Amino acid sequence: MTDPNCSYCAEGELLAAFGIKICELPMSKLILFKEQSHRGRVIVACKKHVDDITQLTQEERARYIEDINRVAECIHKTFRPDKINFGAYGDTMHHLHVHIVPKYKDDYEWGGVFAMNPHRTELTDAQYQELIDQIRANL
Amino acid sequence: MTDPNCSYCAEGELLAAFGIKICELPMSKLILFKEQSHRGRVIVACKKHVDDITQLTQEERARYIEDINRVAECIHKTFRPDKINFGAYGDTMHHLHVHIVPKYKDDYEWGGVFAMNPHRTELTDAQYQELIDQIRANL
Repeated sequence: MTDPNCSYCAEGELLAAFGIKICELPMSKLILFKEQSHRGRVIVACKKHVDDITQLTQEERARYIEDINRVAECIHKTFRPDKINFGAYGDTMHHLHVHIVPKYKDDYEWGGVFAMNPHRTELTDAQYQELIDQIRANL
Repeated sequence: MTDPNCSYCAEGELLAAFGIKICELPMSKLILFKEQSHRGRVIVACKKHVDDITQLTQEERARYIEDINRVAECIHKTFRPDKINFGAYGDTMHHLHVHIVPKYKDDYEWGGVFAMNPHRTELTDAQYQELIDQIRANL
């Protein structure tokens, strides 16, 4: 149940186009989203190549939501956002993943949805590594 | 753990501004979103007035994700969308709710995120009731 042309299955260059893998969790892969207009934005990609949660078993859904929860708790602790948004889209691809997007009061996109990828804030490799280290320390 | 000024807690006129309650599920309230640019768009609002999933217990999260799954299965069966998007935002309010948004290939907002409320497609009361009846039949 993997697709060699899928960023989340294949990783490598396909994933590097937009993300950096931080670690694996029981049911998912945790990925730093390179576009960091929302400081601490990450993706929790399911380990299974399925379209959405209806294609998981009840047990897999329970494990996946616990991974999402663990990451959200970590993002709260690490970045102290005023809210976290959660979004699963992927109309034109077929691998379940949730964007976890910290929002900060009166900052970018506060009060609305978030753009898929605004191509607005890219960081240096050292800055990405610093974020990853902070996240890892609180997971 | 309710807020009389919250649309999802108080229901009534506050909820009627944007939604119609369809029914209650074990951990949530199922609401038809009046803005129907995406045919079959609904909201699954948690019964508890909490900011996000990190404020639920593990058991409550498992029950909530099962409600979301049950509704998503119903939307697949009822409207046959090409994808379902899931989004939880609510930066300026404090009641956990997930937008369940059916997407149709090459139709409105296909391939991107969805607007919070585009104020583009309102239906008649009879048309809302027809959608509700279809959803209820497949829940």
